[in-house]
Amino acid sequence: MKRKPSLKDIAEKVGVSTATVSYVLSKGKESKVSAEVSKKVKAAAKELNYQPNQIAKSLKSGKTFTIGLIVADISNPFFANIARIIEDEAAKLNYTVIFGSSDEKAEKSWDLIQFLSNRQVDGFIIAPTENSEDQIKYLKEQNIPFVLIDRFFPTINSNSVTVNNFEAAYGAVRRLIEKGSEKIGIIAYSNSLYHMRERVRGYDTVMKDHKLKVSNNWLHEIEFSDIKNGVHNAIDILLHEKPNVEAIFFATNTLAVYGLKYLDRLSVEVGKDLAVVSFDEGEAFDFYYCPLTIVKQPLGALAENAVEILIHKINDLDTKEKKVCLDTELIIRESCGRK
Amino acid sequence: MKRKPSLKDIAEKVGVSTATVSYVLSKGKESKVSAEVSKKVKAAAKELNYQPNQIAKSLKSGKTFTIGLIVADISNPFFANIARIIEDEAAKLNYTVIFGSSDEKAEKSWDLIQFLSNRQVDGFIIAPTENSEDQIKYLKEQNIPFVLIDRFFPTINSNSVTVNNFEAAYGAVRRLIEKGSEKIGIIAYSNSLYHMRERVRGYDTVMKDHKLKVSNNWLHEIEFSDIKNGVHNAIDILLHEKPNVEAIFFATNTLAVYGLKYLDRLSVEVGKDLAVVSFDEGEAFDFYYCPLTIVKQPLGALAENAVEILIHKINDLDTKEKKVCLDTELIIRESCGRK
Repeated sequence: MKRKPSLKDIAEKVGVSTATVSYVLSKGKESKVSAEVSKKVKAAAKELNYQPNQIAKSLKSGKTFTIGLIVADISNPFFANIARIIEDEAAKLNYTVIFGSSDEKAEKSWDLIQFLSNRQVDGFIIAPTENSEDQIKYLKEQNIPFVLIDRFFPTINSNSVTVNNFEAAYGAVRRLIEKGSEKIGIIAYSNSLYHMRERVRGYDTVMKDHKLKVSNNWLHEIEFSDIKNGVHNAIDILLHEKPNVEAIFFATNTLAVYGLKYLDRLSVEVGKDLAVVSFDEGEAFDFYYCPLTIVKQPLGALAENAVEILIHKINDLDTKEKKVCLDTELIIRESCGRK
Repeated sequence: MKRKPSLKDIAEKVGVSTATVSYVLSKGKESKVSAEVSKKVKAAAKELNYQPNQIAKSLKSGKTFTIGLIVADISNPFFANIARIIEDEAAKLNYTVIFGSSDEKAEKSWDLIQFLSNRQVDGFIIAPTENSEDQIKYLKEQNIPFVLIDRFFPTINSNSVTVNNFEAAYGAVRRLIEKGSEKIGIIAYSNSLYHMRERVRGYDTVMKDHKLKVSNNWLHEIEFSDIKNGVHNAIDILLHEKPNVEAIFFATNTLAVYGLKYLDRLSVEVGKDLAVVSFDEGEAFDFYYCPLTIVKQPLGALAENAVEILIHKINDLDTKEKKVCLDTELIIRESCGRK
């Protein structure tokens, strides 16, 4: 790769001072220079393929001021929204965010980590997939700064920002019980990720604590690769196989969206025939006929903490691993009862 | 950066053939090797920090098998979903997709293009922001393969995959007229991007063609930086300033989501008090009490065409620029009439 052109090169080409060039190429300072000179400088910068912003900064600092963000599925509003907030937080600190979506596949996550780390992102924010422990250990060994978000591996000492999934699920299902449901089903994902296990454990524990027996046809764990059919089958069993349930706890927003659409098709009236509580918010829920009781995750705080911890780590590799566990909020609306 | 370790290095370390190593490290061929050897090879690969997949491929081909995708706003379901489909299409061809979100800011888009092109992505798929013409010209001058998606600049000859926004808007508003509305307002964005201008032109033209006068308080163009207030003010004017409208055309899904929420707050019943048609689908719409008449964009075809055209360009820089303009579908439901 040919030597990167400097401000000086541009200055010489145009016949102005490097200060003038830097004014033109620095955000918000262009007004200090005449429009005509400004135009010449920009033309020269372009001709010489001068690289502003992060690249220029990185030549000075050895940093690229870029963060790699790896989410599990960019089409999931939870991740799309958190990505947007992480971007805004990073921008405040002059960092650019590059995303990748692992599609819940460890192999894809590994490709993204390899590509981005070899392209000198300064660090990573990662929602790790199942079976990606080796990748996280690799980042540690390579001393690449990173923070896990939404999920983490209890067996690996690393920075992480998560919510208290056990408490959240426990409180959500307790609310169903308080509103009179005793036969309660759960629809979750069949993966080994800690956050999902904790949500299931929350359900189990609150049922036990209330001396409510859980029938074996009440716990449904759906394959991520076939959510729609999985949810439909689960609901068919929950509603039609004895003992059929009075309430359903959806462990994620995506599961709930598929579930609520199917319940509409079956003309099951939520809030009357069936009580429902879901994890996560969703724009879709805002328009649902029965206001949903949901577990609200603090997206803003998750993103802010992740960015803050990562930037600290980038600036001082010796900082101790931070594990932030945030509380969720149970937003109580009508869907958790039955009329 | 130290020399990249080769299959040979790993083979020598473990004491097996390079073929064996490549079996272990190639997808789907591991079964040809004993579990024990496989384990040793992987350990050695990790120890030597061997980079598989794109990087290994790129050493052979000079390519990174990575596409840079720059969308306008990753938290917008339209872009989040198209990103996901582009990813799936690219994966079929063994390409990884790295995203950036320009947040509709030309400066941010420029940072992303600079960072990614300097990190050797093989090409770009870009939903360009307002005032980013120079960036597109720069990519052309630098011979960097790219395809514009969703938006394009009529003044620049480049690959593009878009929909027929004029036709789509014309047909949507015509439907409102056919269902009996004559006083029709439009809520769009106040930007100079061609696709948005075309949607407004479609509205203007169909009104003229039906000899319907457009009052000055019916065309509302919202700042992207303040959508919520913009939409609320627009609706207040459309409903309460004479001549007040019988129908509203929302030029994007985001504008419609804010609009419908506000109409609920005002207790305006869509499909009865007010007719509504919106551009784009939205998960939120699926749960809306009045089934919405919408302009459905062919997300799959947009993504497939963009990836296909880009890969051709990557493999043969001399291919002629392709301009694909796809038709949309008007999904007719109840919201476009008034009872």
